[in-house]
Order: sequence, then structure tokens, then C-alpha cells
Amino acid sequence: MLTMLARPRQAAEMLKALQSLLLPLQAAPGFVSGRLYRRADDPDIICYVEEWGTQKDLDRQIRSSHYTSLLALMEKGAKQPELRLNWVTEVRGLEYLEAVRLRDR
Amino acid sequence: MLTMLARPRQAAEMLKALQSLLLPLQAAPGFVSGRLYRRADDPDIICYVEEWGTQKDLDRQIRSSHYTSLLALMEKGAKQPELRLNWVTEVRGLEYLEAVRLRDR
Repeated sequence: MLTMLARPRQAAEMLKALQSLLLPLQAAPGFVSGRLYRRADDPDIICYVEEWGTQKDLDRQIRSSHYTSLLALMEKGAKQPELRLNWVTEVRGLEYLEAVRLRDR
Repeated sequence: MLTMLARPRQAAEMLKALQSLLLPLQAAPGFVSGRLYRRADDPDIICYVEEWGTQKDLDRQIRSSHYTSLLALMEKGAKQPELRLNWVTEVRGLEYLEAVRLRDR
């Protein structure tokens, strides 16, 4: 998850560049999803999210030209970007809410 | 992480309702962050993200009136919302990219 602040009037350009980075990922081994968001309270704050199946898949990608391009793009924001890699060991859905709320009764 | 599709011309209203849900969280024990996003390729897709310090903090919140309101809001989208709870056991930053890329040389 990469969070960047676009320079004034450059958000659209930055989104376009990030979008074009996402496209070829669809075919990469272990790729799960790639999404591009803007903060609701400040559309100049752009959030680029990649999800990978395993650490091996992520590492392979990090060594690729994809990340060379991504690192170059990270230089173009209005301030230091924030990169956050989350190791997710468990995923739950709506059933978790129901279980917790019922357990309490 | 809750992903909802707003009904036509109701995205602003939905964002406002979600924003008002985020405000009181600041004071809740174990609350880390709350953010509201719109998908760059479709601003009607709204992504509401809460982060909690521990499972205990999350569970306490799930049992609160906050989640009763959130569940009510989830009914108002144009289609079935997607709720995803990620258990994050490790967080890394930019230094991880650097380590992986150097290791490979």
C-alpha cells in the first residue's frame, strides 16, 4: 500500500501513470489484486494497493522493472510517500461480525 | 475494510454518513486509524477502512452501536457490500524493498 500526495493539478497524471503500472500485473504469478484510490477528504492523496499471494511472489515483483518504475514514480509526489507492506495471516468477512455480536448476547 | 457501491448520485451522502461514523472513533481504545477512499476508476465505489490495535479492541467495537450503524449503512448500497477483515502480523516499509532489491545483486 503506497500513499502519495500529488503536486497541485498533477493528480490525474499520477493516477494515469499508476494505472499503467497496474495493467501488466494481471499476468504476473501470484498476483491477487491491484487497486487505485483517492482519499475522499482530499483527492490529491492517492493510494495504490497491490496484493500478492505469497512473500515469494512479492519479492520476485520487487526485483522486477515494475518496482523500478514504481520507485521512480514515488519521487514525483509533493512529499515523501508512505509505503506500507502488511503481512496478512488471516482474512475474515461479515460472518466474523455476526459471530462476535451473537457471542455477546 | 468495507467496500460499497453507492447508488447513482448518492455517493456524497454515503461518504458523509461514513465520515460521521469515523469521527467518534478517534477516542475509542485501541483505535489506530480510519480512512475513507473512492476508487480512482469509479468514484461510486467507496472504501471505508478502520484499523485496530488488537483483536480485543476490534471485538469491543464490533459489539458497539458504531457497528450497528455501520451494518445499517451497509444495506444502503447499490449491491451487496464486501467486508474484509485482515489480521496483520507484520508491517514493513520502504526498507524492505531496499533489502530485497540489494539481496538480489
